[in-house]
Amino acid sequence: IRYTLNKTLRPSEVAHLIEKSPPKERKLLWSMIHKDIEAEVLQDLGDDVQAEILSQMETAEVLAISEALETDDLADMMQQLPETVMHELLRSMDHQNRERVEKVLSYPEDTAGGLMNTDTITIRPDITVEAALRYLRRHDELPEMTDSLFVVSRKGSYIGSLPLTRMLVSDPTSTVREMMVTDKPPIAAKMEDTKVAQLFEQEDLVSAPVVDEKNQLLGRITIDDVVDVIREDADHSLMSMAGLDEDEDTFAPIMKTTRRRAVWLGINLITAFLASAVIGIFEETIGKVVALAVLMPIVASMGGIAGSQVLTLMIRGQALGHVERSNAGWLLNREIIVGTLNGLLWALVVAAIAMLWFQEITIGIIIGCAIIINLFAAALAGTLLPIILKSWGIDPALAGSVLLTTITDVVGFFAFLGLATAFYS
Amino acid sequence: IRYTLNKTLRPSEVAHLIEKSPPKERKLLWSMIHKDIEAEVLQDLGDDVQAEILSQMETAEVLAISEALETDDLADMMQQLPETVMHELLRSMDHQNRERVEKVLSYPEDTAGGLMNTDTITIRPDITVEAALRYLRRHDELPEMTDSLFVVSRKGSYIGSLPLTRMLVSDPTSTVREMMVTDKPPIAAKMEDTKVAQLFEQEDLVSAPVVDEKNQLLGRITIDDVVDVIREDADHSLMSMAGLDEDEDTFAPIMKTTRRRAVWLGINLITAFLASAVIGIFEETIGKVVALAVLMPIVASMGGIAGSQVLTLMIRGQALGHVERSNAGWLLNREIIVGTLNGLLWALVVAAIAMLWFQEITIGIIIGCAIIINLFAAALAGTLLPIILKSWGIDPALAGSVLLTTITDVVGFFAFLGLATAFYS
Ligand SMILES: [Mg+2]
Ligand SMILES: [Mg+2]
Ligand SMILES: [Mg+2]
Ligand SMILES: [Mg+2]
Ligand SMILES: [Mg+2]
Ligand SMILES: [Mg+2]
Ligand SMILES: [Mg+2]
Ligand SMILES: [Mg+2]
Ligand SMILES: [Mg+2]
Ligand SMILES: [Mg+2]
Ligand SMILES: [Mg+2]
Ligand SMILES: [Mg+2]
Ligand SMILES: [Mg+2]
Repeated sequence: IRYTLNKTLRPSEVAHLIEKSPPKERKLLWSMIHKDIEAEVLQDLGDDVQAEILSQMETAEVLAISEALETDDLADMMQQLPETVMHELLRSMDHQNRERVEKVLSYPEDTAGGLMNTDTITIRPDITVEAALRYLRRHDELPEMTDSLFVVSRKGSYIGSLPLTRMLVSDPTSTVREMMVTDKPPIAAKMEDTKVAQLFEQEDLVSAPVVDEKNQLLGRITIDDVVDVIREDADHSLMSMAGLDEDEDTFAPIMKTTRRRAVWLGINLITAFLASAVIGIFEETIGKVVALAVLMPIVASMGGIAGSQVLTLMIRGQALGHVERSNAGWLLNREIIVGTLNGLLWALVVAAIAMLWFQEITIGIIIGCAIIINLFAAALAGTLLPIILKSWGIDPALAGSVLLTTITDVVGFFAFLGLATAFYS
Repeated sequence: IRYTLNKTLRPSEVAHLIEKSPPKERKLLWSMIHKDIEAEVLQDLGDDVQAEILSQMETAEVLAISEALETDDLADMMQQLPETVMHELLRSMDHQNRERVEKVLSYPEDTAGGLMNTDTITIRPDITVEAALRYLRRHDELPEMTDSLFVVSRKGSYIGSLPLTRMLVSDPTSTVREMMVTDKPPIAAKMEDTKVAQLFEQEDLVSAPVVDEKNQLLGRITIDDVVDVIREDADHSLMSMAGLDEDEDTFAPIMKTTRRRAVWLGINLITAFLASAVIGIFEETIGKVVALAVLMPIVASMGGIAGSQVLTLMIRGQALGHVERSNAGWLLNREIIVGTLNGLLWALVVAAIAMLWFQEITIGIIIGCAIIINLFAAALAGTLLPIILKSWGIDPALAGSVLLTTITDVVGFFAFLGLATAFYS
């Protein structure tokens, strides 16, 4: 195994192997990895797994690994370290490296600044393409994912980019200024990482320059790190809707998982008791007509399903930047019509089945009306909840589904049992 | 507006603007776009929106647009066209272009072959780097996202890649064979697009060569198209779990949406009636103790929530390639312990509340036991369903949540009402 790990597999494959192993095997695998690839493997691991491994390392080992990492990955790793180890690490670095890492660390992890690397190759606008090519040849190697050189002024302001593909077909005697492209604006260091990802996706970028408020070039963002942001953001909606953390490790220790899951179950329990309280109001009616107890979950569940569809579509629309205040009215209108149409359709079906089952017309009418009301409420809640929550700064993916099913449960039980109480008394 | 559309915004921004507009405004916006950017805007639109616009165009217009597209985007667009228009389009192309498009179309859309572009720049291994640079300079421009030249034999077999960044720092007199890299294997045309995306993500690639079974170079895949696959696959789990299609357009026409949504509501209705039938068995007991009707949704909902958490984690684990037969046993074991621990915790809480609410000890014991049973069932179903469904070739994201809640509803009602019947008679 040791041979396969270090010779046959690439570091990214070793990282993948570690991620899909239970904790004990992970430790074993990690201990068998050769020092040379430790750094590369570590930076490819998820945050949770990274923190787990780092917590068991000596400070000296952490220092050794840190030397092999690029600035952005190093900054990433340092955020998983205990405060004391982090400061020791910073102190151990040479002046230039420390300055670079501190620059990246000074921006929040989820902004362009926290995502950037400082390995830019910069040139002046007034040299010729030939001179720029000579300058490149003096390097032993160029940083990975270098697809453009950045053109900066003497004072370090960003002026434009010179794509390598363009440089290679240019007349060598033309100047950088003539050949550079300036139509793509640089990225502000404070831009949210989700926005950065949208920009890369829309514009099909490989790398992009990052600047501060004074247009000084700070570093660059590369597509490989953006891909990780896209994956994380996409995971985020899926995991949040089930009350999970997007960094949640499939193989996390039992007690950690139990604790994390318990919180969500607790929140849901409160809303479940709310629904029960609504049913409790109508105890007397149920005592008289037990068929109501048999059918009531149907009303609630149809509302929950219809509402989840709208909610999911809205949350995805928000993530893609399609849902905004300007088209919210149109969307609400559409969802209410769709909800009412489906309400009418399924009200007829359910009413017919209920009538046949219990040989009674009244119960069919009651459940039919309750379904129409609940699907209307589901459309309303599914559309408005994400918009309202977002405007309050609450993540709709996290809070949306609990609130939604609370609404459809309460409305469903209230409509069904309320109508029944009116009809049967 | 017309000025903004054509002058201020980039084509990708125009596409984004169209996607977030309701159908009528979309038509208006499209009609105002200048012919020159039509092709670029069109290829940036989602499949559903693209098909909508294409269906309203004359064949001549489609032909005009097709000329401005790259092979891969053209093949993509052609899959949205009616058969007759597609054949007319193929006939109108010149021999070389037709051959290229047919090569891409001959592979399914969701494979490496369907994803590739044919715009590779190839060189021979025995020339010098200097000669390769001269060859490049003869081009007017290089294809976008060109980060490597592909080295092929006289017969067109793939031999290796020469990254531009490496070429630029090489000694000009060295040969391509000396400088090329061969450690990254080329992608087989039949590889699934999801696997391609995993490879790009793991290896941080910008472009990769695609070969057929005989190792002949067919084309290349670029990261911008892989990003779209990643986005689609990530959307897929989220949307499927709510019974939506990942291509679902936020602004689709009302009747289309109503029909799509109705199918899912219908499937769920069947499972809801199944749960009702279980309750129906215990009608007599509920008639005697109405408190059961009040509390029974709590048992079902706690099971549903706990099960969804496990299911979501498993589905994400499968998408990331973390869940396999080899670690399924470990996972099942872990989830059952977590489920039982949470079952014990919340059973105590719910039992205490139920006892206080109804001033009776029996009902507390009954609901506590039912919750432990249901959370155990939820862990079992949440872990095993995705593994079983996947081995049957059924998409766990699509079928998993319906089946799971059916199981937790049925087990929950059965356990709670069954225990109650035993205790109260
Ligand atoms: Mg990280
Ligand atoms: Mg983030
Ligand atoms: Mg970072
Ligand atoms: Mg794109
Ligand atoms: Mg990386
Ligand atoms: Mg990086
Ligand atoms: Mg497409
Ligand atoms: Mg696919
Ligand atoms: Mg394609
Ligand atoms: Mg990567
Ligand atoms: Mg594109
Ligand atoms: Mg392409
Ligand atoms: Mg598709």
